[in-house]
Amino acid sequence: MTVVRTDNDQTRVVVEDREGLRMLRFTNLREAFDGGLLQYGVDVPGRKLDDLDETQLASVAAGAGKVLCVGHNYRQHILEMGHEIPSRPAIFSKFTDVVIGPFDPIELSPESEQWDWEAELAFVVSRTTRGVSPAQASGSIAGYTVANDVSARDWQKHSSQWLLGKNFPRTTPVGPWVVTTDEVDPSRGLIVTCSVDGVEKQRSSTSDLVFDAPAILSYLSHAMQLDPGDVVLTGTPAGVGAARSPQQWLADGKTVTTQIEGIGRLTNVCYATPTPIPNP
Amino acid sequence: MTVVRTDNDQTRVVVEDREGLRMLRFTNLREAFDGGLLQYGVDVPGRKLDDLDETQLASVAAGAGKVLCVGHNYRQHILEMGHEIPSRPAIFSKFTDVVIGPFDPIELSPESEQWDWEAELAFVVSRTTRGVSPAQASGSIAGYTVANDVSARDWQKHSSQWLLGKNFPRTTPVGPWVVTTDEVDPSRGLIVTCSVDGVEKQRSSTSDLVFDAPAILSYLSHAMQLDPGDVVLTGTPAGVGAARSPQQWLADGKTVTTQIEGIGRLTNVCYATPTPIPNP
Repeated sequence: MTVVRTDNDQTRVVVEDREGLRMLRFTNLREAFDGGLLQYGVDVPGRKLDDLDETQLASVAAGAGKVLCVGHNYRQHILEMGHEIPSRPAIFSKFTDVVIGPFDPIELSPESEQWDWEAELAFVVSRTTRGVSPAQASGSIAGYTVANDVSARDWQKHSSQWLLGKNFPRTTPVGPWVVTTDEVDPSRGLIVTCSVDGVEKQRSSTSDLVFDAPAILSYLSHAMQLDPGDVVLTGTPAGVGAARSPQQWLADGKTVTTQIEGIGRLTNVCYATPTPIPNP
Repeated sequence: MTVVRTDNDQTRVVVEDREGLRMLRFTNLREAFDGGLLQYGVDVPGRKLDDLDETQLASVAAGAGKVLCVGHNYRQHILEMGHEIPSRPAIFSKFTDVVIGPFDPIELSPESEQWDWEAELAFVVSRTTRGVSPAQASGSIAGYTVANDVSARDWQKHSSQWLLGKNFPRTTPVGPWVVTTDEVDPSRGLIVTCSVDGVEKQRSSTSDLVFDAPAILSYLSHAMQLDPGDVVLTGTPAGVGAARSPQQWLADGKTVTTQIEGIGRLTNVCYATPTPIPNP
């Protein structure tokens, strides 16, 4: 399933089944899960999500009540950085004005000089979830999608709290669609890659995750209520620009390609925004 | 100004001026600032905010696009904890299902055994704000209100990121109203107190803040866009339960009173919620 832009700045949820595509009346996944996915659909037989125009695709995280993220979560990356394997996931959040569509430009603010990439597996919550075990949490995962948690490293390190480095507007592409759990299983090991201008920077497998999606969702559900349409990014593997020697950063005009085997691919061109004009 | 509950689970913004109260058609402060505060009002002459029934008051942060918080920000508290005065504020965020009205019960989940109080000055943003100086930011502050950033200390310390300890549902009272900047000036030193069951636990002055509201808003505005109705909690002074010897925690039935001179008072009874019933 995915979210497409229609005329007049509207969005609509589109699902793919055996017969083809079905455009629903819902404007985002939150509404779609709340309302029952298959109601009031308009069928477009014989087409598939792959057939959709890239520029038509909106973020599957738009309209989410909560967008949550996990910090260090790939064994190889943690060990190469000299850290211990954590006993609990480190959790931070994103405001919804941070997410963009799967082929939208990534906005690089001039306020940061250290723009970095972070390819990530993400999952979408299908129902209200609170206080569940990992086995129970599996039943609350609608499916998986791709994200890039593009980060302003300097701002991320201004204090102990990473929030600001992760919340510049329009920096986090999510999509291109949600592949349901009956069609994809990250525990079998899906290859995650990130390339910048065609040069591969990250390559790992989801089998290297310390905390898988059910474990993360179970943990979160003991602190807060998760709702339909909420999106969780599960952390990035080794190969980020900050960990390279010398360090490497994104810049105006560079193209970031983020791909997960069996799910899909994001392609985003970086755009250096002008300094914002402050109000008086 | 404040937000009141009406019949049928609705809310309405109420403003006080020289003639009395005026009930606006807007359901929250975000809408009110977007729509022009004084349009379409119904006058209630001769009454004041103080006359409103406490149980009628909703959170002034309900409907906010962003709720942001500052960590260590009172000089005395930082120094007594042996930390250095930070060069930049530590910022974290709250989801909107965390905020409650000024006299609502605080929900203590059984998932935490370390519920702590944090009396805080908060401010409300009046207009879209990006990339401003502290002087410019002053013009984007609608006014000040009172908050208690009730925290689950064990969850706050699960990892380096505090988010989960600060985001249990229905734990953060905000209100009882917003006092506009023409009527109150925290830089002159307003007394902040927090009492539990009538015993004073925190007493400080807003003149001890390291980063005042314009400095915080200016800093935030260089990373993100602030919008009308956004709420920022500015940090808590010394006297929290975690820093006491022996440590003290909130529990079922305890009453938390949070007051700031010249602004107002929150009174919230703690309610130990049952263990949530998970979905299958």
